[in-house]
Amino acid sequence: MIIVVSPEATPEEIGHIVARIEETGRQAHLSEGTERRIIGVIGPDAPELQDMFESMAHVESVHRVTKPYKLVSREFRGGPSVIDIGRGVTVGGNELAVMAGPCSIEDEDHIVNTAIAVKAAGANILRGGAFKPRSSPYAFRGLGEEALRHLATARKVTGLPVITELMSIRDIDAVAEYADVIQIGARNMQNFILLDEVGKQRKPVMLKRGMSGQIEEWLLAAEYILAQGNPNVILCERGIRTFETAYRNTFDINAIPLVKELSHLPIIADPSHGTGKHQLVAPIAMAAVAAGADGLMIEVHPSPDHALSDGAQSLTHESFAGMMRSVAGIASAVGRSLSGVEASAAAR
Amino acid sequence: MIIVVSPEATPEEIGHIVARIEETGRQAHLSEGTERRIIGVIGPDAPELQDMFESMAHVESVHRVTKPYKLVSREFRGGPSVIDIGRGVTVGGNELAVMAGPCSIEDEDHIVNTAIAVKAAGANILRGGAFKPRSSPYAFRGLGEEALRHLATARKVTGLPVITELMSIRDIDAVAEYADVIQIGARNMQNFILLDEVGKQRKPVMLKRGMSGQIEEWLLAAEYILAQGNPNVILCERGIRTFETAYRNTFDINAIPLVKELSHLPIIADPSHGTGKHQLVAPIAMAAVAAGADGLMIEVHPSPDHALSDGAQSLTHESFAGMMRSVAGIASAVGRSLSGVEASAAAR
Amino acid sequence: MIIVVSPEATPEEIGHIVARIEETGRQAHLSEGTERRIIGVIGPDAPELQDMFESMAHVESVHRVTKPYKLVSREFRGGPSVIDIGRGVTVGGNELAVMAGPCSIEDEDHIVNTAIAVKAAGANILRGGAFKPRSSPYAFRGLGEEALRHLATARKVTGLPVITELMSIRDIDAVAEYADVIQIGARNMQNFILLDEVGKQRKPVMLKRGMSGQIEEWLLAAEYILAQGNPNVILCERGIRTFETAYRNTFDINAIPLVKELSHLPIIADPSHGTGKHQLVAPIAMAAVAAGADGLMIEVHPSPDHALSDGAQSLTHESFAGMMRSVAGIASAVGRSLSGVEASAAAR
Amino acid sequence: MIIVVSPEATPEEIGHIVARIEETGRQAHLSEGTERRIIGVIGPDAPELQDMFESMAHVESVHRVTKPYKLVSREFRGGPSVIDIGRGVTVGGNELAVMAGPCSIEDEDHIVNTAIAVKAAGANILRGGAFKPRSSPYAFRGLGEEALRHLATARKVTGLPVITELMSIRDIDAVAEYADVIQIGARNMQNFILLDEVGKQRKPVMLKRGMSGQIEEWLLAAEYILAQGNPNVILCERGIRTFETAYRNTFDINAIPLVKELSHLPIIADPSHGTGKHQLVAPIAMAAVAAGADGLMIEVHPSPDHALSDGAQSLTHESFAGMMRSVAGIASAVGRSLSGVEASAAAR
Repeated sequence: MIIVVSPEATPEEIGHIVARIEETGRQAHLSEGTERRIIGVIGPDAPELQDMFESMAHVESVHRVTKPYKLVSREFRGGPSVIDIGRGVTVGGNELAVMAGPCSIEDEDHIVNTAIAVKAAGANILRGGAFKPRSSPYAFRGLGEEALRHLATARKVTGLPVITELMSIRDIDAVAEYADVIQIGARNMQNFILLDEVGKQRKPVMLKRGMSGQIEEWLLAAEYILAQGNPNVILCERGIRTFETAYRNTFDINAIPLVKELSHLPIIADPSHGTGKHQLVAPIAMAAVAAGADGLMIEVHPSPDHALSDGAQSLTHESFAGMMRSVAGIASAVGRSLSGVEASAAAR
Repeated sequence: MIIVVSPEATPEEIGHIVARIEETGRQAHLSEGTERRIIGVIGPDAPELQDMFESMAHVESVHRVTKPYKLVSREFRGGPSVIDIGRGVTVGGNELAVMAGPCSIEDEDHIVNTAIAVKAAGANILRGGAFKPRSSPYAFRGLGEEALRHLATARKVTGLPVITELMSIRDIDAVAEYADVIQIGARNMQNFILLDEVGKQRKPVMLKRGMSGQIEEWLLAAEYILAQGNPNVILCERGIRTFETAYRNTFDINAIPLVKELSHLPIIADPSHGTGKHQLVAPIAMAAVAAGADGLMIEVHPSPDHALSDGAQSLTHESFAGMMRSVAGIASAVGRSLSGVEASAAAR
Repeated sequence: MIIVVSPEATPEEIGHIVARIEETGRQAHLSEGTERRIIGVIGPDAPELQDMFESMAHVESVHRVTKPYKLVSREFRGGPSVIDIGRGVTVGGNELAVMAGPCSIEDEDHIVNTAIAVKAAGANILRGGAFKPRSSPYAFRGLGEEALRHLATARKVTGLPVITELMSIRDIDAVAEYADVIQIGARNMQNFILLDEVGKQRKPVMLKRGMSGQIEEWLLAAEYILAQGNPNVILCERGIRTFETAYRNTFDINAIPLVKELSHLPIIADPSHGTGKHQLVAPIAMAAVAAGADGLMIEVHPSPDHALSDGAQSLTHESFAGMMRSVAGIASAVGRSLSGVEASAAAR
Repeated sequence: MIIVVSPEATPEEIGHIVARIEETGRQAHLSEGTERRIIGVIGPDAPELQDMFESMAHVESVHRVTKPYKLVSREFRGGPSVIDIGRGVTVGGNELAVMAGPCSIEDEDHIVNTAIAVKAAGANILRGGAFKPRSSPYAFRGLGEEALRHLATARKVTGLPVITELMSIRDIDAVAEYADVIQIGARNMQNFILLDEVGKQRKPVMLKRGMSGQIEEWLLAAEYILAQGNPNVILCERGIRTFETAYRNTFDINAIPLVKELSHLPIIADPSHGTGKHQLVAPIAMAAVAAGADGLMIEVHPSPDHALSDGAQSLTHESFAGMMRSVAGIASAVGRSLSGVEASAAAR
């Protein structure tokens, strides 16, 4: 940590800062620049130190020089992690993970038929919401445990492992019983008690980035899970909130290569939420794979104009299958595979 | 709801949209403009309709014409709500509510002494964190229930009602037992299960705006609480996340008069989080009261450079007392009172 | 245009709104919904009408139903435009346009050698800054006209057409004399006098999106140029400003397919500015092409740690050549070509 | 400047960074922390250095320790500047500057009558647009020089000094001839050639903050003007662009006290653009004065529903007079004056 001292500080005032540093058990190393004096703080970093030092008189700014996360960092592990989610599917390896299915599970036939369709198109994981976070208390909030049972039926029929969202510690046992991967949604990226709890169990966890989550905060949220002992974390970029109103969210493509540089965890792209518009899903899915994403999460509904949630961003079975053929071409160009899908160039 | 149809749609295609509207039990009212055809949807609004209609072919855009919240709206109640939090203190009336105290409770002496100091300076509610949301899992996360007991001691000594944050349904009974007002933090603004649960009990709830929460989403989050039967909700503006890096958050002063126009709920300003810099707290507190805020929430610590959290934005006892004298002048200018504080013009 | 009237408006008050509409020469069409009354405004739209109507008592909101631009819209022209920039190069056709070169031109050898290197790697347009917008008045602001002459030399040597930025109407003759494409930078996206002037001449113009330019504003800025008679406009997405501080800008990948849906104009991606970090340039270039971009603009410098501007985001000659091989694979997967570059899969 | 080196760098690699620093004529000062090595760069800062060093291998991050502006900094001048704009009016002193008038000047009667009305209500400067930046090329763009002559007439009638916007170097002589203060609009905050030119003449300049202008960039833009020799610069906060869509812009109240801490230049608040909604103008004006603003800029129109621009955010003559009485109370509470206006408490 480096402390920049304002030019008018007297030696006594600097001495006060140095004393406060030494009181924390660290050493202070003063150096004189042309225009500013700088104090290097030698010793272990701690989250509260920056605020403490910034509160002191004559401190102009405080700069951290180390990353605040450790277990999720690339340098901690060396190479990328590959997460085994069971039923022969891994995330982070050469083969892309494609999670597809409806936003909300509406009934058993609905999820089973969608599962069959997305599997036929090349998806290797089934998604479906049982507990739905909704802005309005008057919106459909999911079928809850009943939906989890339908999801299990769809898994039995197709063999696809399943991912579903956990919104609260209240439902952790139910979700962990049925799901192969537990999803933590964007609104819960910093629900720290929930992160602790999914860190204490062993099912893989997919952690979505919050709407205004900085990359560093997102990696720290993942660190919560790893710090509790669960190393099986998958990240998911799903768009951030910006000034642009032409789409629901702005898909942050930069995050994909940067996260892979900073962390060993795999990263999935969700172009359905990342755009909010069905006609943008395929090009953004292709872009994400080109940028290095380890997989995709796609909302698919047999009849989007009857969907109880997220119809505007859902693909039909046919458009999903078309998207998969386009993605397969990109996957091949970047040396990744998408098993059982034949590539076709996107129509312009 | 109004649906704008693209110009190339044929009568058959428009008929399909109309049929879908009627299938939902609403009526369709077609009108022809100079350049676009428009379909008015007559009947009750529902959250999922917009997405359903947007997913249809030849629909260019869908416009909602009613507000999605009801119980929190100004028109539902007519005038402003005044929330009684007990011990003779109300929020939303003529007298300003001033909540002051440390970010985290560090020990009994710390909170008791701070309580005495902030009361002497004119605060009428004591704040103090027992459960702390922290970006890093390695940061101090609060003393938990032990801190709640210290808070109760400080209340006993000073007579001030207390507010503290609830982070999880796990701790709702403990927090509801000790607190006079339950705070829902910015990161939990859309933790819908937690909102449901604080809606089912009867202690007043202060709901902070999320870092990227739009006003409408914030009011819908409050609607969750009222919809469960608890009308005692206080809103708190605490700054939003923007591109500006010169402060931790950007205090959204516009939100104060707009919320008062849209809703009957009282609104409190938190300039400590809204700026993240102690030297900006007093001017922003004054601005918020000038714009119509019903009160303030201020972080105060006897020695900010020793605070275990949020030192950079905490006021000392002395600077808090100075701020209160400046705020008193503004309060008086807008016809509000701040009992027992003598006004003094701010130094320039 | 649709006007939503507040529920408490009396018939007289609504009559006043209707009279104001008719005074503007349009017709008013009143319809009654379940909760709100709505007035459709029938007749030509005009930019000032929305503000006028919003200022009236009892008007809750005003919704536009037509797009505010015409000449740049996809529906105006039907299909995509292909811009001929001379010397055998077009933008918007099947072959990708790749504009590469240094941020600033530093001397003749520098630009000539870079031109030779980027041409060898597959670039078909040379970029180089003569007039540089810089945040600080103390930074290097370009060599001006001298740099334009060096650029002409590099064109003569390599045969590559050249693009350079025009910052002010003061320099329009000089820039138009030397450049094959005139660049309007992000900070000038809404410099409307400059847009008028480049609209009055006939050299192709590349219009960068402003840091906080909404898609609609950007298309309206292009409309300024077309409205003056110059149809040869190329758009360039170069990243927007968001809350994320991990990169200089956030490349808005969603903009690429959306602009192609809304407009007939070609769109180029600038991953150098869109990320600000050299190690992210190649993956974002690949993503942009996968999403449908018509070309790329890339900063290349023989020795980025000696560059007088934008060193952090510049590629060396070698890394640019590597990027081109990776992009070629993506181009092929989406049915585009990159002449003379052999594809290689990106290293993971 | 401080360079943080990645932990795996070898002594040779660090030697390469040190050599590059010395090549620029600065000294390198290496220090070893617990987890990172740090190199202090001793010598004058320069804008391009950060980018150069960031482009080097094994450099993790580069931190500036000095502010990039000098002439505008508070420490350069010691205390606040008071700008004399003639006709007995100053900006930055004890008396608040209130600039009021229409967005666009529509004809002579319009501006003269508005001038008389705003003067009667307490305004001491007349604003009025002759050249208008408009998003759409089809919108009313102002009457140009004809409007400047009307403005001069209104000045003659009322004695009020006038402020009007300059959009381009093309019109600098005309605007400088008629205006007492030259306004540079938000879209031109970084139109550097225009900044140079208004720096070379001597009329006072009011520089609005850009929609996505960071405080530091805004102060650097002001530095451009001072660096050319014109010290008479007034800053104007007019709202920034954020994710919130409930208002046109988000007024950044934090900017007011922070700018006063960082710079000696006076700062004006524009709540008309800062909110875009007439009903929010008065509370935000009051807030801005409470936070320390040196004055206000307010759009006033006799009949906002007939205004050719910005009707939705314009006050009528009556509502402006009411706002002034409310502001007077706040001014008095902060020790500022608003001559000839009798304070009244705002209605709640």
